[in-house]
Amino acid sequence: MSASAKPARTPEPPYHAVIFTSTRTDADRGYGAVADRMVELASRQPGFLGIESVRDPATGLGITVSYWTGEDAIRAWRQDAEHRVAQEAGKSVWYSDYQMRIAKVERAYGKPA
Amino acid sequence: MSASAKPARTPEPPYHAVIFTSTRTDADRGYGAVADRMVELASRQPGFLGIESVRDPATGLGITVSYWTGEDAIRAWRQDAEHRVAQEAGKSVWYSDYQMRIAKVERAYGKPA
Repeated sequence: MSASAKPARTPEPPYHAVIFTSTRTDADRGYGAVADRMVELASRQPGFLGIESVRDPATGLGITVSYWTGEDAIRAWRQDAEHRVAQEAGKSVWYSDYQMRIAKVERAYGKPA
Repeated sequence: MSASAKPARTPEPPYHAVIFTSTRTDADRGYGAVADRMVELASRQPGFLGIESVRDPATGLGITVSYWTGEDAIRAWRQDAEHRVAQEAGKSVWYSDYQMRIAKVERAYGKPA
């Protein structure tokens, strides 16, 4: 499962967001399959609200934002065993640089229908 | 000026993030030049901390996250005259769908040096 190519539909705030910005290395080593698997696993976690993910193939820069009911859900997902293996591969093989930010969404609005 | 192809370097939290996720229409109408101009203008605003922006040309989905010292800085930038013209063109011409979320960044960490 990949993230959708549309903005995520989320409930009324407040809720939490994990903003993960990264630059990929040239090393593939199964990246695409693991990335898809992590989206699939995350979306089955308690407290998961949605995910948006984009990478520009030309620059290697990517932004993934996942939405969660709160800090507890984020913590549980971070400690998931299969996710931890992927996190280690991310640090050592797949990402030359990254920033992770945990934020509380206070307000949100979308394009009027 | 375009957003950098690297994760933004921001100060220690707390600070604010504006997460703008959008799907582009097929209409160009000067989009690229205006998008670059908005990054340039935003980065000169009081309270601006950084910006990350990625669009996947294959799907049209884009995520732009800008970082600000607080709500006041976000409000001032939203009300900037040239920005307001661009916002209207975005709603009516450039974006078939979007979600805007204003969030308070509580924790952040990057790849260890």
